Amino acid sequence: MAVVTVGLVLDLFGTFFFAMSGSLLAARRGLDIVASLFLGSMAGLGGGVIRDLVLGVVPSAFDRPVYFVPAVVAALVVFFLLSSVERFERPLLVFDAGGLALFCVTGTVKALEAGMNPVAAVLLGVTTAVGGGLTRDVVANRVPQLFNRKDIYAVPAMLGAALTAVLWETGVYVTGAAIGVAAVVFGLRVLSLHFGWHIPSAAGSWQRRPVDEGEGGA
Amino acid sequence: MAVVTVGLVLDLFGTFFFAMSGSLLAARRGLDIVASLFLGSMAGLGGGVIRDLVLGVVPSAFDRPVYFVPAVVAALVVFFLLSSVERFERPLLVFDAGGLALFCVTGTVKALEAGMNPVAAVLLGVTTAVGGGLTRDVVANRVPQLFNRKDIYAVPAMLGAALTAVLWETGVYVTGAAIGVAAVVFGLRVLSLHFGWHIPSAAGSWQRRPVDEGEGGA
Amino acid sequence: MAVVTVGLVLDLFGTFFFAMSGSLLAARRGLDIVASLFLGSMAGLGGGVIRDLVLGVVPSAFDRPVYFVPAVVAALVVFFLLSSVERFERPLLVFDAGGLALFCVTGTVKALEAGMNPVAAVLLGVTTAVGGGLTRDVVANRVPQLFNRKDIYAVPAMLGAALTAVLWETGVYVTGAAIGVAAVVFGLRVLSLHFGWHIPSAAGSWQRRPVDEGEGGA
Repeated sequence: MAVVTVGLVLDLFGTFFFAMSGSLLAARRGLDIVASLFLGSMAGLGGGVIRDLVLGVVPSAFDRPVYFVPAVVAALVVFFLLSSVERFERPLLVFDAGGLALFCVTGTVKALEAGMNPVAAVLLGVTTAVGGGLTRDVVANRVPQLFNRKDIYAVPAMLGAALTAVLWETGVYVTGAAIGVAAVVFGLRVLSLHFGWHIPSAAGSWQRRPVDEGEGGA
Repeated sequence: MAVVTVGLVLDLFGTFFFAMSGSLLAARRGLDIVASLFLGSMAGLGGGVIRDLVLGVVPSAFDRPVYFVPAVVAALVVFFLLSSVERFERPLLVFDAGGLALFCVTGTVKALEAGMNPVAAVLLGVTTAVGGGLTRDVVANRVPQLFNRKDIYAVPAMLGAALTAVLWETGVYVTGAAIGVAAVVFGLRVLSLHFGWHIPSAAGSWQRRPVDEGEGGA
Repeated sequence: MAVVTVGLVLDLFGTFFFAMSGSLLAARRGLDIVASLFLGSMAGLGGGVIRDLVLGVVPSAFDRPVYFVPAVVAALVVFFLLSSVERFERPLLVFDAGGLALFCVTGTVKALEAGMNPVAAVLLGVTTAVGGGLTRDVVANRVPQLFNRKDIYAVPAMLGAALTAVLWETGVYVTGAAIGVAAVVFGLRVLSLHFGWHIPSAAGSWQRRPVDEGEGGA
């Protein structure tokens, strides 16, 4: 029971972090306060909704409307407290990293609790973690952070989800361990942003010449 | 039984209005007739599909293929009758407003009928109302109308969904009331387009400098 | 039982073909190997996930993690074997056509097996076939191939899904027929690419003046 409560708290914090990233993106684009609430909600709740639809349960966001509270708070924080922030991209990325770190843990746990096998649970944990930011960036019509080639985004989440599944399967999953895993994921993501850690190109050793948009025909 | 039938009719009209907005967007972009059918279908059916997946029922669009009829009609109307229309954006926005107005009512009612609590039902009604236009704009690779800062889009739908839930909970929801709520939502949306009504920026009093695309890294 | 196994094999090949198209797009954009895996996974699995959510079953991708194997193989093939490929667009489109051809058959069959009526099964087969490429292009922030006006994309899939349903309903659906239908769909799509077959514009005889992006307001 205590674990469930802690799980909810971690999930709400993850929702808040992603919602901040969405509301900051809305502010960056000069959108209005309602757009801020929507973009924050989609960032904060998108990953969990996809996870819950896959699990075949009513998405938490709609089953327990308390999940919208972090999105409302994030929109208000950005509305009232942003006057002194000069640039948005850095805080946006840090909040996004916080959501990523918490959701790869809570998403994996929710899938395991629902009886998914460990491999599927890891896949679903990663989906939860990257789904919110992906939804945010897709509806805001920008290339998702997930596909950023200048640093690593999904790798820390994949590591965190795998660690969570191992802890769970070996019976040593406790609140402290969950927070520890999230801290490691957060640290890896933020350090990769700072130091520009990146991984090999999709095309391997091939001398790449990236191609821009415009091939879609319409 | 009569209410159910009226609900279906309102839903099909909402589907037709959103489908018109999708087919008009396809024509505006110079796409072909099949793309028009797909873009209209996604605009007309996207919101309801998301709603039904959240409710855990087979989406109406697939359960009752009659839901594709409005999309076919919309594609044909645009194909055969568009010759004389000079500009697309105005009719596109008016049809979109019609879909928004009807779906915030029918979406909320369907969620309430499925046993959702009133708060969740309002959230789901708003999701139904904005989901079609959001899907249309996302797949067409443009910034969603939902995030337009020059007028109000989601606010009328939020008001309409809340009014619908209040009428339902107080037991005075009848067909006439439903149409009245939809008319109010439609009127607010169209008036906001005409008069440029808008709401405060996401960043509050902060002197905003909107940032354009291109930060996504890829 | 044999049909089920053949169905799985066809489905995995379809997944591989679409995953190749996603990984090739990642390479084309200069993305990294993990982005390649994600874009390939979304292209290969997106259509089936939507189909299974509509059917109300746990999506195959998560229920049977073997479905991620083709995506991993595709990312590795692009990583290790791409050095000698000069241009990406042609192979990308051919692999995409292979996925389209197989998924319009397997998607329709899975819907029929789940008890959907033939019309809904055809709609769901088409959704499966176009959903992967649509997801790939939407998350990669480009206009979907589905909306390409220079050739035909959805029409062969619609034809293939309809043929599959007819074969199934008349009781003559066998493995050979399935592969035959897929071959016809693949042939039509590739020939349309080669010869530039296209269909009438959404706006009919109206003298079209396509409008570009930028009307979204944000």
